[in-house]
Order: sequence, then structure tokens, then C-alpha cells
Amino acid sequence: MSRERAVPRRRRAPAALAAAVLALSGALSFAAELLPVGTRDGVQELLERAARGTRAAEWTRRLCDEVGPRLSGSPGDRAAVAWAQRVMREIGLTGVRAEPVTVPRWKRGEETGEVLAPYRHRLVLTALGGSVPTPVGGLVGELVAVPSLEALDALLAKDPGAVRGKVVFFHRKMLRDSPGNGYGSVVPIRTEGAARAGKAGASGVLIRSVGTSSSRLPHTGAMRYAAGGPRIPAAAVSAPDADLLERLSASGRRVVVRFRLGCRNLPDAVSANVVGEVRGSERPEEVVLLGAHLDSWDLGTGAIDDGAGCGIVLEAARLIAEAPRRPGRTVRVVLFANEENGLAGGREYPRAHAGELPRHVAALEADGGAGRTKGFGWSAGEGAEPVLAAISSLLSPLGASGLRKGGGGADIGPLRASGVPLLSPDQEGASYFDLHHSADDTFDKVDPASLEQTATALSAMAFALADLPEPLPRLPEEAPAARR
Amino acid sequence: MSRERAVPRRRRAPAALAAAVLALSGALSFAAELLPVGTRDGVQELLERAARGTRAAEWTRRLCDEVGPRLSGSPGDRAAVAWAQRVMREIGLTGVRAEPVTVPRWKRGEETGEVLAPYRHRLVLTALGGSVPTPVGGLVGELVAVPSLEALDALLAKDPGAVRGKVVFFHRKMLRDSPGNGYGSVVPIRTEGAARAGKAGASGVLIRSVGTSSSRLPHTGAMRYAAGGPRIPAAAVSAPDADLLERLSASGRRVVVRFRLGCRNLPDAVSANVVGEVRGSERPEEVVLLGAHLDSWDLGTGAIDDGAGCGIVLEAARLIAEAPRRPGRTVRVVLFANEENGLAGGREYPRAHAGELPRHVAALEADGGAGRTKGFGWSAGEGAEPVLAAISSLLSPLGASGLRKGGGGADIGPLRASGVPLLSPDQEGASYFDLHHSADDTFDKVDPASLEQTATALSAMAFALADLPEPLPRLPEEAPAARR
Repeated sequence: MSRERAVPRRRRAPAALAAAVLALSGALSFAAELLPVGTRDGVQELLERAARGTRAAEWTRRLCDEVGPRLSGSPGDRAAVAWAQRVMREIGLTGVRAEPVTVPRWKRGEETGEVLAPYRHRLVLTALGGSVPTPVGGLVGELVAVPSLEALDALLAKDPGAVRGKVVFFHRKMLRDSPGNGYGSVVPIRTEGAARAGKAGASGVLIRSVGTSSSRLPHTGAMRYAAGGPRIPAAAVSAPDADLLERLSASGRRVVVRFRLGCRNLPDAVSANVVGEVRGSERPEEVVLLGAHLDSWDLGTGAIDDGAGCGIVLEAARLIAEAPRRPGRTVRVVLFANEENGLAGGREYPRAHAGELPRHVAALEADGGAGRTKGFGWSAGEGAEPVLAAISSLLSPLGASGLRKGGGGADIGPLRASGVPLLSPDQEGASYFDLHHSADDTFDKVDPASLEQTATALSAMAFALADLPEPLPRLPEEAPAARR
Repeated sequence: MSRERAVPRRRRAPAALAAAVLALSGALSFAAELLPVGTRDGVQELLERAARGTRAAEWTRRLCDEVGPRLSGSPGDRAAVAWAQRVMREIGLTGVRAEPVTVPRWKRGEETGEVLAPYRHRLVLTALGGSVPTPVGGLVGELVAVPSLEALDALLAKDPGAVRGKVVFFHRKMLRDSPGNGYGSVVPIRTEGAARAGKAGASGVLIRSVGTSSSRLPHTGAMRYAAGGPRIPAAAVSAPDADLLERLSASGRRVVVRFRLGCRNLPDAVSANVVGEVRGSERPEEVVLLGAHLDSWDLGTGAIDDGAGCGIVLEAARLIAEAPRRPGRTVRVVLFANEENGLAGGREYPRAHAGELPRHVAALEADGGAGRTKGFGWSAGEGAEPVLAAISSLLSPLGASGLRKGGGGADIGPLRASGVPLLSPDQEGASYFDLHHSADDTFDKVDPASLEQTATALSAMAFALADLPEPLPRLPEEAPAARR
């Protein structure tokens, strides 16, 4: 797909370039008031160069094909840390290093499921990350179906013994583009379902996969037990299997399932945040951070989550590294460890770089898949908006000039406490949760042209932020107690 | 989904009914010239009754949920034969019986695959139906990638030893709505790939799944070895895995795979064609056959292939059985055995009913999924078209009045030699090959409203054919030597 699409795109380049230059000339008149001519010229040069083709999809493809799945502490994770350093050196970054991060280690085992009654069926399921295993022969239990955590509470209020010794099945559907049933509102079932059901005496938990696909592939994701609480096995069934369980439960007949999870929690391992830089030409001690996460879940090859983000930030940095004039500040790429099941990389970075944080002028994270960028979300101090608007106006030829308050990312989130302005590309992502955390998260799902557009937008934004005469106004610092 | 959709549909019924009656009054003026008023009234009554709700989706759901997968000779197959007889009696069919059919028996085992070089990857694959197993420890081999059978021939013409001891990987993509790369043109790779590669000394065969989905679920399907030729293991990899193998092969590096198939060919078993009738009111010895196939592949629950067809023909027959006036001829439902991997049911039926075939006035098969019907394909003798056009005009309120020469079906195909006119609904099916023969063929993919519309159209067509004063002109009989 990559090669097939790249050819027509390059053939289109001259026309696209002409249109871009035309559009830029208008945007520049607005940007002129707030951005120095050198910064504007630098952004324009970068956009023109990127329009002749970028290598974002190449980095993502290579990470997926040469490394593949890379769950924290796994052999794939180690391979990814080595791979990332090689590629950073290959594209001309300096100060390339692996900064150690202690990460949790959880390993999937064999996993099988079946319905035993009222009819026998195979159940397609996958352990949630962090789950304890079932007994070797499997866990057999009668199903108690409830849509949500709140429905479980309501059931327990009526009958505190309602789920004792049973398997609780949470069947709330995540809906596409639904504010009420979106990822954020459904995901607590995955993270807390086992803790809540376990506390009520359940023997196990099944959830409907948190995702929007109707495919028979389950979606994994992190879960956590309550400290000192019971630890019961937890798995996600695929959407069609959830539909089946829901139909069988609704029929009023007794539903009995058996599932077997061979997963294990192992001792912590050492992974790394992989760091590389384009050193600033004037104030190299000041840093614009470009982040993505290097780890992935184990079922797919981590293409959209977050191989895409890795490809985007590596290419964004390469485009800056090859600029005829580098920006004044340092652009630092950080490929974070352990975003998926612990966020240890995102937490470790501010500890390891505490002294530098006042000189981190902005942090941008790409962890929203491989879709086109419509603009940027941003969180910064008062007075930042006109400056960001001036930069964004330069991105209008890409269709990426939107601005929305509230940017950030899981890995860069811990920098907020130190007042670092946070940004993230707002990417199209209608199919993102079809693939997310499932075996379907593979490179064929990446549209190279969209990935290139996002890499270009991020690169231009980072260039400008690293080249502003004055850094963006910072966020108010949080008191140490409030820090995560 | 079934229940949620059924409610608004029933609320809409009065308006839909009014529109249907209005449309019918126009159509009737044309049909009047060729169809007796009693037949027209019978069809109209049936359409009005069906507009108040049908139970097609209920039969399909129950087959999927109460039986599930039902590969020939498996426990599911036996359960399906019992289930079908129960449901036929439940809906008022008579003469319900299981007519024995000897079927091949093939059983899937554990199956795993991996890429060993140039990078380690899991390969998601599934054995093709009929494949021999690999050695217990798996088959390891270097991959030779070719797009097609023709490309293999071309390679062998240059170097007869090109695939000796290697695993041939056929990677032709089936494309959606593509005449050149549709199912019919790609499927010979699945059926003949192992025979052709085995003859050239290959140790195994992998094919890109024959399907249109980009999901990480492989599609199985029948394959056959050449009589007396080598029998090498054959499996289909999912589309994303095929993309990976293609990328790795295109890189020019040596690609080594290992796969393990635990499948087995077992002694033949006895299954059955399940038969039930609505006995004709005037010429009960003359038969309109309504066919679908009861068996399914083992990965999904056989919802669209062909639980949908079973639901359609059962409901079509029920609508006729409950008519205030039954048609003159007998409407016979046949749920065929073993369509997927042998067609033993379709071949057995004309043997078991040889004496009756001259009195089979038409056979209709529903094996095209769960989509809406746009009209009918038909194969009949000269003079049939005006009669079919008159009947079809009565179906215009359903949007099902199209006619296309060339109807038929795998199970009813063997009746052609005896001159029996063959028909099949032309159903919408853009997503059919996304699901076909994969674990994704599950009931949630069935749109109940579309299934009801097709059941209604088929029922009305069957009613009219069973009630015509003169049967449809027959096809020319084939000489016994030409018979399949």
C-alpha cells in the first residue's frame, strides 16, 4: 500500500506545491504580525520540502515489520528500544540515548473460552492486561449480565449476594462518535470492572470489548485491581460474542461459561524512554519535546497505537534536522516506554529531567492514530492563543489550521504540573477504535498520505515553537501535592 | 439488534402497507394479462401479511444461537438436522423428514503460524477445508511468493525446481465489486493451489484469504488435491498477514515461515437433506423447491452462509403455509447437506427423487447472504420471461422486481440436467465477502429488515410459481453423459 500510494502522490506534488505556496502568501500576511520573518520562512521551506514526500510511513512500517508487537518488558520491547536508537541515528538526531525506565511486565498465555449452557459455543476472548490467570482447567461460572458499573451497583443494592461465585458480564457498547458512549465513558468498565465485581464476590469478569468494530477480534487494554482487594480473572470478548451472550442472557435461560487465561504477572523489567535531538542553533538548552509511545499491546503490531505516532515524530524531527536553518531551540524526540499498561515512561521522564523542565517550552504528543490532522489541541498560559493562531495560519495549506483548547497526551501529561505548554494534533479517527488494542492494529490500516500530512503539520508546529522569539506562555505550575 | 429493529418496523407497517397496496394496483394491470386473478390475489394477500412482520430473522438467529457452526459430519451438523426438523414442524410443514446423505468429514485442529525470518511474527492463518495436517512439530519452509496460479506456471517454466521443498505463497487480492478480481476469478487459487504447487514439489501452500475484509481473521474454504497427486498442507492467512508476507517478500530478503495444522480427514459420515412441505391444494405431486444449505464452515456460526438462506426459505414456506388459500402445487423446502465441502446433498437429492424430477416445476435457492433482494436471476425455457415479468411486477412494492438471466445455486444446480427451471434472489451483498467463511460470519451481521424483505420476495415468487395454470417452460434436458 505504501509504495502504490506514494507514486501518484509524488506525481501530484508540483500542483499541490503551487496551491500551497498560493495559500501561504495569504496566511503570511496574518502571521507576519506575530512571527519573525525567519520563522515564517523556515516553516514555509519545511512545508515545501515535505510536499515533495516524507518518510513517516517508512518509519511506521519498519517498526511494525522489523519489531512488531512490543509490550513493556517483552523481547519486542527490547527490540524496539534498540530499533528506535538505530533509526534516530540514521535520520541525523544527536544525543541519542535510552533512558532507563522500570516497567511492569505482564505476559499473555493461551486463552480460550466457551459457552457451556444453554448451548455450546466457542467464545472469542482475550485477557485484559494485568489480569491474573484462571485455574489451569479454566474458570466455570454462571453469567450475570449487567450493562455497566452503575447497573452492578444497583443490582447489589437490591441483593448483595447477586454475583457471588458468578461471572459478571458487562455488556455496555461503545458507540462510534457518541459523546455518551464514547471511549472515555465506557473504559472504566475495563479498568475497574474486575475490582468492583471481585469485591462483591464474583469469580471472574467478562466485558464486551471496548471498541467500535463488529469484528470477531477482542480488544485488550489495561485493568487494575483494588489494593488489597480480590484479584479475579478478567477478559474481553469480541463484539459478536458479546452480542451472543447478551441474547442468551436476555432469553432468561441460565448461561454458563468457561474460560481459561494463561496470563502471568512477572517481576518488573527495565525498558527505556528513547531520546534523540535536533540541537537548537541559538538556545539549545531550551527544549520543544515531540513525544509518542514506543510500547504497544501484544495482539497486533501496534501500527496505529502508536507506531503511527512514532513515525510521525521521527519524521517531524527528520524534516527539522534537514532544514537549511535549524530553529533556535532544541527539538527533542522522546519515544516513551510503557504508555499502555502503567505510564512508567511518562512518569519517569520528569523525574529524570527535573532540572530541565523550566526550560521545556512545549511538549507535543502524537498518540491519536494515523489519520489526517485538522489542527491542534493546546493547553498553555494566557496569551498563547494569538501566537498559536499565527503559527496555525501557516498550516492552512495542509488543512491543519484548526485550534482547540485542551491538548495533551498520556505521556506528556505529567509535564503539565511543571507548567509546560502541551499540544497534540487533532486527527481524523473514525476507524481508530475499530482497531485499537486488537489484533487488527496492523500496518495495512495506515494510510501513508494521511500519516505524511500529520508528520508535516507536527513538524511545522514544532519548528515554529522552537523558533519563536519568546516561548509560549506557560501553564500555572501545580503545587507538588497536586502533581501526578 | 433483532428486537430493537423489529419495533419501529412494526410501527411503520400501516404506512408501508398503504404504499404497497397503491403500487400493487398499478402492477396488477400488467400482471392481469398473464396471471389468474386467484394467483394475483394470493400474492397480494401474502405481501400484505408479510408487511405486518415476518419471522425470518428468528429462524436464522435460532440456528446460529441454538446450533452454531455445523460443518458436515460434525456434532453441530447432527444438531442442525434435528433442529431443522423441529422448526419445520413448528411452522406447520408436513412430510418433514431427514433424507440420508453420505458426507465427507474433515475436522480442524489446533493451528498456528509464524514468520521466522527475516523478523519473527505471529501469522494468523487457518487450514483450508480438506487439507492434510502438517507434521506435529510444524512445517518450516522458505517462502516463494507468486500472485497467481498463472504466475506459478510462468515461474516453473523458467525454473522447474523453483518451489521444490518450499512453501508457495499465493497473494492475489480479491477486490470488492471487481469483475476481474472477484470471487470466481480468485477462488481457483484456493481450490487448486495446493495441487499445483504440490505437483511442482512444494512442501506447503499459504494463500491470501479469499475475501474482501482487511480484518485479521482468515477465511477458510474448500480445496482439493489432484487424484494420485501429492497432498501438501494448505492454509489461508488473514489479509493483514498476507500484506506482511508480501512486504517481506518484496524486500528481497529470505522469508522463512513455520506453520502447524492439526486438521484431519476422517471417515465419511451420514448427514441429511432436511425436507418439509406445504402440500399443494390441486396438483400436490408437482413441486416448487425452495432450497438453502444447512451446513456451514466451522469458524463462524454460519449466519450469512447460509443461516440467512435457511431463515429465508423457512419463513417463505411458513408464509405460504399460513395463506388462506394454498397454491395449487406443493412447495417443498430442502435444507441441503454439505454444500461447503462436497455438495453431497445437492448431488444426492436428484438421485433420491429421480422419478419426481419431471414434476419439479421450479427450484429456487437462497445462498447469497442476508441482503435485500433487488429481483431474481432465472434459468428457464423459452417463453418463461413474460410469465416471470408478470410475477415480478407484483414484487415492485418490495423493490424486488428486477429480472436477470442466469439464476441458480450450488445445491439446485444438479437439477438443471433434468430441465428444472432454476431461480435465485439477487441480493445486495457489498459486505458478503468480508464475512464469508470466516469467524466473522455471525448473527450480528444480519440485518433483520433486509432478511424479511428477501423472505417475502422469495415467498411471493414461490407462491406464484406454485399457482400458475401452466408451469414455467422447462430447460432443455441434458444427455445423461453431460449430467453432473
